[in-house]
Amino acid sequence: MEKKDFIYEGKAKRLYTTEDPDLVIVEYKDSFTAFNGVKKATMGGKGELNNKISTKLFEYLASKGVESHFVRQLDDIHQLVKRVQIVPLEVIVRNITTGSLCKRLGVKEGMVLVRPMIEFSYKNDELGDPLINDDHAILLGWATEEEVAKIRAISIKVDEILKEYFAARGVTLVDFKLEFGKDSKGNLMLADEISPDTCRFWDSSTGDRLDKDRFRKDLGNVLGAYEEIWKKISA
Amino acid sequence: MEKKDFIYEGKAKRLYTTEDPDLVIVEYKDSFTAFNGVKKATMGGKGELNNKISTKLFEYLASKGVESHFVRQLDDIHQLVKRVQIVPLEVIVRNITTGSLCKRLGVKEGMVLVRPMIEFSYKNDELGDPLINDDHAILLGWATEEEVAKIRAISIKVDEILKEYFAARGVTLVDFKLEFGKDSKGNLMLADEISPDTCRFWDSSTGDRLDKDRFRKDLGNVLGAYEEIWKKISA
Repeated sequence: MEKKDFIYEGKAKRLYTTEDPDLVIVEYKDSFTAFNGVKKATMGGKGELNNKISTKLFEYLASKGVESHFVRQLDDIHQLVKRVQIVPLEVIVRNITTGSLCKRLGVKEGMVLVRPMIEFSYKNDELGDPLINDDHAILLGWATEEEVAKIRAISIKVDEILKEYFAARGVTLVDFKLEFGKDSKGNLMLADEISPDTCRFWDSSTGDRLDKDRFRKDLGNVLGAYEEIWKKISA
Repeated sequence: MEKKDFIYEGKAKRLYTTEDPDLVIVEYKDSFTAFNGVKKATMGGKGELNNKISTKLFEYLASKGVESHFVRQLDDIHQLVKRVQIVPLEVIVRNITTGSLCKRLGVKEGMVLVRPMIEFSYKNDELGDPLINDDHAILLGWATEEEVAKIRAISIKVDEILKEYFAARGVTLVDFKLEFGKDSKGNLMLADEISPDTCRFWDSSTGDRLDKDRFRKDLGNVLGAYEEIWKKISA
């Protein structure tokens, strides 16, 4: 499958059409961005790492019955995926309190939640991806009530599966962001990527950050952390 | 019933104990505040207006089966109410889009929603009463799942009752804020006040603002609008 026309460039990926109108090619870029694009960098090899990590995780989720847009990895930095229309919600799933949640709500860092906490943001860079609730999503037409329920159920399932998967590999899945899309028939499925860009991974023994927080917080050895995640899931 | 000890001073009210540990006296102040206390003013007669408007509305809601902390009006600026522990949520019920919602989510002003939109804020001045969702309230211990469901159901009932009540009086109930409290036995009930300080009222014919937006936006004739609301509901 070959790239045809360029469709779209996001912060971390580029999209291209293929000869099949229902399939597109994702190119994973080497760029890092944080704080809604305010902080930027490029690190060679990052796109490749996220491509293979995301491939592995989408394949694992598929083996557990979670459908996604992922079709197959094409090469180092390319994935073939189903063409979907992205639902304009960012879904955050939290198992442990940290990051923006703690700042916004004055909550202690590192509290283990009794069950996953789900947050929806309205996917809109100009507005800074503001937090919304179910009523906003439904009444402002961003998702139907049924889609919101399905998104919530899939998100909780993904959390259960990945929490256990990473725990078995010595990694604590702290929180992560999911996106969803609808294919040409209106089927809702997981989309985007699952990688250290979109998850917070803490080394279960040392507490070391193995994710984009190393970039956000200038902790150094950013790509080393991504490689560490790849090593743990490819072993 | 006489005031005993001073308990607490809020932005618009003062609270005093009485000889009955389960009852407190609310004193309605003449002060206006907006934008989380940044804009302030005092207007003689405002406390009296809000006291009588709130009395009328709590009495009307009680006649329709909605329990609140309200016991009776004592005089111009005092109300006797049940002593409750306030649930730290501000509940916003919206029928028409306006205000912070439109700014935050880039939504058009004045859209009539197909059903009421409910928002919860975490009642915390220091944090600016941030928007939260049900999971935040439940998992961070601010209300139980059962309380959240009850708060939502009561809020929708209050909206139904008051929307119709005001419509019959030529006033559109645009949105409003409710607070809830629990008495010494743990019974959840409506608390705080219901007044032009906590509701957006639009004159159904002219569209004139008959609420605190006159103060927020320097529209003038602030108390005249409050008097207009009193006239319409006491006629």
